[in-house]
Amino acid sequence: MPELILDTQKCLHNIEKMAQKARHNNLSFRPHCKTHQSAGIGNWFRDFGISKITVSSFPMAGYFARAGWKDILVAFPFDPAQLKILNGLSEKVRISILIDSPDILPFLDRIDARVSFYIDVDSGYERTGVRTEEITTLERIIEDSKKNKNLSFSGFYCHAGHSYKTSDPSEREVIHVKARTDLGLLKEQFRVYKPLALYGDTPNCSTQKDFSGIDEITPGNFVFYDLTQHSLGACKKEDIAVAMVCPVLSKYPGQNRLLIHGGAVHFSKESLAVNGTRIFGQLVNPDNKGWSAFPHEQYINSISQEHGILKDCGTWMDGIRPGDKLGFLPVHSCLTANLMREYKTTDGQIISTLNSCLKKSN
Amino acid sequence: MPELILDTQKCLHNIEKMAQKARHNNLSFRPHCKTHQSAGIGNWFRDFGISKITVSSFPMAGYFARAGWKDILVAFPFDPAQLKILNGLSEKVRISILIDSPDILPFLDRIDARVSFYIDVDSGYERTGVRTEEITTLERIIEDSKKNKNLSFSGFYCHAGHSYKTSDPSEREVIHVKARTDLGLLKEQFRVYKPLALYGDTPNCSTQKDFSGIDEITPGNFVFYDLTQHSLGACKKEDIAVAMVCPVLSKYPGQNRLLIHGGAVHFSKESLAVNGTRIFGQLVNPDNKGWSAFPHEQYINSISQEHGILKDCGTWMDGIRPGDKLGFLPVHSCLTANLMREYKTTDGQIISTLNSCLKKSN
Repeated sequence: MPELILDTQKCLHNIEKMAQKARHNNLSFRPHCKTHQSAGIGNWFRDFGISKITVSSFPMAGYFARAGWKDILVAFPFDPAQLKILNGLSEKVRISILIDSPDILPFLDRIDARVSFYIDVDSGYERTGVRTEEITTLERIIEDSKKNKNLSFSGFYCHAGHSYKTSDPSEREVIHVKARTDLGLLKEQFRVYKPLALYGDTPNCSTQKDFSGIDEITPGNFVFYDLTQHSLGACKKEDIAVAMVCPVLSKYPGQNRLLIHGGAVHFSKESLAVNGTRIFGQLVNPDNKGWSAFPHEQYINSISQEHGILKDCGTWMDGIRPGDKLGFLPVHSCLTANLMREYKTTDGQIISTLNSCLKKSN
Repeated sequence: MPELILDTQKCLHNIEKMAQKARHNNLSFRPHCKTHQSAGIGNWFRDFGISKITVSSFPMAGYFARAGWKDILVAFPFDPAQLKILNGLSEKVRISILIDSPDILPFLDRIDARVSFYIDVDSGYERTGVRTEEITTLERIIEDSKKNKNLSFSGFYCHAGHSYKTSDPSEREVIHVKARTDLGLLKEQFRVYKPLALYGDTPNCSTQKDFSGIDEITPGNFVFYDLTQHSLGACKKEDIAVAMVCPVLSKYPGQNRLLIHGGAVHFSKESLAVNGTRIFGQLVNPDNKGWSAFPHEQYINSISQEHGILKDCGTWMDGIRPGDKLGFLPVHSCLTANLMREYKTTDGQIISTLNSCLKKSN
């Protein structure tokens, strides 16, 4: 069966580097846990002085609260159905939520402990958020929220996810400069509330140098990185901290093709364009210290539920036998980790996630 | 949180129709369980006289063996690392495996109970299998297998998965005719072994009429169908037996956009081209009997880890509030079910899967 191998040293190095970058730029650091989804890996952040986190759902908030985190931002527009869970959690830990419309406020009338909120603002990504120029809407949210004594406005949150749409550093800088300028202007406009500006996507947090206008960063993927981040120039391939180890099941020398056990239920269906074709992972050499670069560029070229197919394999395939293990860097480590539900570190330790207690009871 | 709703009646109807089709064509029926992955849904097949199944992995074989199935084909080239599990299972139930290379045979020397095998043959899909014209390789596998007293050759297995690459019925018929002709010729060529011909992809099993050359069909997806199958002409939209119900979290009237909680960790990243753009699900109207067609064609247009975005929403969006539930037909029900890990039937019953015992213990 495929196994997701975690290189602890690379992961710790990624955490340390981002923590240092935050410190050097006088930024607070609230890492997003949606990539690793693991209390064990969350603990590694504490050693770098991290005391607050970001999550993407209320079940994830509950999991990390049980793991001892006391300051958790649920960075996802609030779902009224989660009110009961919010109330349960906010009695015990500091929970912050995202709001991007005045329509949600009536649903928060029944919160019975203190909850702080950030307004999700849209600087051009066009996924969620109030557009940064819609000052009237922002004012209305803040004004309306004052009717609720348990609700306190803490600032603005901006995810400039359109940074993923370009690998051109100057194009990405335009996105970043607009986002931090927008946040700076909002802080100025609403200075009476002393709002914080939260920001953070891995490509920008990894590559940008000027974070003026921003108070706190919330990137997540950097903990592992992946081929997508590499393609965007956000990391080196050597920084990628997870690799899937898959058994070879069969080879088809006449067609230069190799079959691995490793499919969409392991890697996800996320793909990346490399030299004009879609790929689903890149071959590396697993060894007992983790893995090293493979001498040739070889990719997973197609994927179905359990199957992965490597095409145009060279003569390196000659020595491969069924049962041999090959390693693959994932295209999107968040989705891969979510599917695999646990990590095996290079020294053989199993690290569980939010979902893996599930796996073990089976 | 998103929930995967199962319309029991539609599902039973899909099972009944395929079972009837098999019977009318004198075909044995060995449904693939990789789509539903559920002992509960597996039981529904028994009512239609089904006594043998297909699975895609050894953990799945073990799960269905524990659920009482006595005749299980693991339709995936054998992984030597699964030898111990194979031995454990084959003592209790009839296990068949797939082989597509003589290289795997030495790894089977240590099986200690009777195991039957099918040779996976490739009629043009180019994923796995010995090419149907490589008679020498087929002969060698059969000859070499005779050295192993516990191994018995049962026939040929062909998955003509290239049927998914065309929505043109005449193109698909060419694929089907070639596959069943190839299987018929192999049966004739190797008639001394009385081999069975196993075949089965949902598009062909749903649409073809002539199954001569074939003994047993093994389709899986038909149990639920999905938007992909609909796009291929394999089902009507009314046949799709699962829909994801997702809460609306926010709306952006200025941009005709709606945010739902429903992302890549629920639907998977599988997409489908509709009118030239990629979509990730189609809006339906959930009601207390299940769901009905939505009066306008509305799709999920983009998806990230937890977010789903509906674009170009019409005036129907006016009445929508945060917390309202919307239903969506999935693009690929196998991957969606694998991620969701349980079903809620239209009468509120929870049906678990291979992975959901995991979920409950959390």
